[in-house]
Amino acid sequence: MTESTPKKKTIVSGMRPTGKLHLGHLSVLENWVRLQNEYSCYYFIADWHALTTAFDQTEQLQENIKQMTIDWLSVGLDPKTSVIFRQSDVKEHAELHLMFSMVTPLSWLERVPTYKMQLQQFGEDGKDISTYGFLGYPLLQAADILLYGANAVPVGEDQVPHVELTREVARRFNHLFTTDVMTEPEALLAKIKLLPGTDNRKMSKSYHNDIALSATPEEVKNKVASMITDPARIKKTDLGHPEICTVFTYQGVYNEAEKETIATACRAGEIGCVACKRCLTEKMNAVLAPIVERRHELEKDDAFLEDVLRDGAKRATLEAEKTIAKAREAMKL
Amino acid sequence: MTESTPKKKTIVSGMRPTGKLHLGHLSVLENWVRLQNEYSCYYFIADWHALTTAFDQTEQLQENIKQMTIDWLSVGLDPKTSVIFRQSDVKEHAELHLMFSMVTPLSWLERVPTYKMQLQQFGEDGKDISTYGFLGYPLLQAADILLYGANAVPVGEDQVPHVELTREVARRFNHLFTTDVMTEPEALLAKIKLLPGTDNRKMSKSYHNDIALSATPEEVKNKVASMITDPARIKKTDLGHPEICTVFTYQGVYNEAEKETIATACRAGEIGCVACKRCLTEKMNAVLAPIVERRHELEKDDAFLEDVLRDGAKRATLEAEKTIAKAREAMKL
Repeated sequence: MTESTPKKKTIVSGMRPTGKLHLGHLSVLENWVRLQNEYSCYYFIADWHALTTAFDQTEQLQENIKQMTIDWLSVGLDPKTSVIFRQSDVKEHAELHLMFSMVTPLSWLERVPTYKMQLQQFGEDGKDISTYGFLGYPLLQAADILLYGANAVPVGEDQVPHVELTREVARRFNHLFTTDVMTEPEALLAKIKLLPGTDNRKMSKSYHNDIALSATPEEVKNKVASMITDPARIKKTDLGHPEICTVFTYQGVYNEAEKETIATACRAGEIGCVACKRCLTEKMNAVLAPIVERRHELEKDDAFLEDVLRDGAKRATLEAEKTIAKAREAMKL
Repeated sequence: MTESTPKKKTIVSGMRPTGKLHLGHLSVLENWVRLQNEYSCYYFIADWHALTTAFDQTEQLQENIKQMTIDWLSVGLDPKTSVIFRQSDVKEHAELHLMFSMVTPLSWLERVPTYKMQLQQFGEDGKDISTYGFLGYPLLQAADILLYGANAVPVGEDQVPHVELTREVARRFNHLFTTDVMTEPEALLAKIKLLPGTDNRKMSKSYHNDIALSATPEEVKNKVASMITDPARIKKTDLGHPEICTVFTYQGVYNEAEKETIATACRAGEIGCVACKRCLTEKMNAVLAPIVERRHELEKDDAFLEDVLRDGAKRATLEAEKTIAKAREAMKL
């Protein structure tokens, strides 16, 4: 099944719709935007996956999906180039998942490192997520990926075992049914700078230390003002330690050109935290303003957002149907 | 959601396509035929289920599906009345299964009595079926049943725990999502006479003691001739013990009117095994001949068989889509 015309390689990636995204997600999305030129990209909103840990909290689901779509488009994902869709609009994800479930040893899923870890984490928060679906979610991911013949999957380190499972499932399917329908994808580890939250812990909405992608200039200003700096520095003339300062971490991302100058001035007590924060606020708003502006346009246009997801689902389904047809043929189903 | 017009109650049942059916299945099918008048019936060929224990033996799957369709129609299932379809033609089974998987505790599936029993049985035969899909097959059954709002499910005693699980899943779904979308079905225990195989063990193709529904008069004659009778009876004049005789069990099913007369004659040494078997053969062929005749017609008409399954899938999908739409609405998906 070789292609006679050269074809772009395919990328698949998804995110659970957890609401408005924050700056911690921006670098991931910027990576997705870059990949659009080089690859055929399938980016999906993983609403079925959202149920694995939050089946009892679906009140906000539709609003979260809408906000995520807006965020994606605001940062530059292009629905004309990439296939942007909602997972549950393409039933073939459920179908391939079911087909894979018949050939995947239970032990493969029980051994996924995140499985017991997450069960425990949620358990400590008093939440029992030990459902059949939670055990199977890495297999649903395998279906998500293999359905579009992905050659690569952009992931963080923690997701590498899931890509490895996907490769194992692909190999097992191909071996059992003497076929090459399933393409083994590579993990594409992007060098992504992880931004901490305003309090220097991991950025997370639940810690209230996040800065939303949709933050207005005023909100950005307030968030930066609340950032923890070098606690030993009281007056401007105190010598600063940029290496432990959250504001400086942000300067490294949003003001890379002036980063070294600022560090030197801070260490020498020549620039105060207020001035440093003002400068960061300006730089951040320069990046965020066009995103927020685009968001404002999109927020007014529900019909367009629906069109994007409908069109994405249609394009995704076309590809998904091809894979299902080949997989069924291989299985003699 | 009350119906203003009285509506027939709904029945759902399925069989795994294991090839041509035998007389052991006939009483189950005769029960299905009877139910057609009283209920809206959905009868499906469970090809996805067939994969749980035989994912590596799909060579015969399509032929088995065809033969099962012929058997069903031959005994009187009416595709104009009942919805007769192939499970994998209706993707909504996979979709509802996935939705249920998110809310079904793993422990519910691990506790299904047949689960560990079957794992062990297959294990003794050197076959490892401990896949994710095998653990989940009672949940797929729940989806099969609840997708059509079944009020009742005709089952044997051994399947009662599966219906109970289905009821639990329905209750949990309705409770979690404050809805009444899922109808709790009753187990409909039919009084079914289980015919033993020709050697008096359980009838099974793997024991070579079965009589196919498609058996010709000659084959029936030979099968009956090979039946084990009272081993103590050598000559006709030896006194017989019908209660331990396979032929007599069959007389009870195929020749109920003469059963007592035959028993008396056997005990008195007045009827020999050869005559008894000849009489049984005639009675059996009287029942099987019209089935075999109808089969011969159907075997010639692939297009009709395909039409039946295509039309069934269309009708099933219409109902399934309604349930999925309501379920998604309840889940806010």
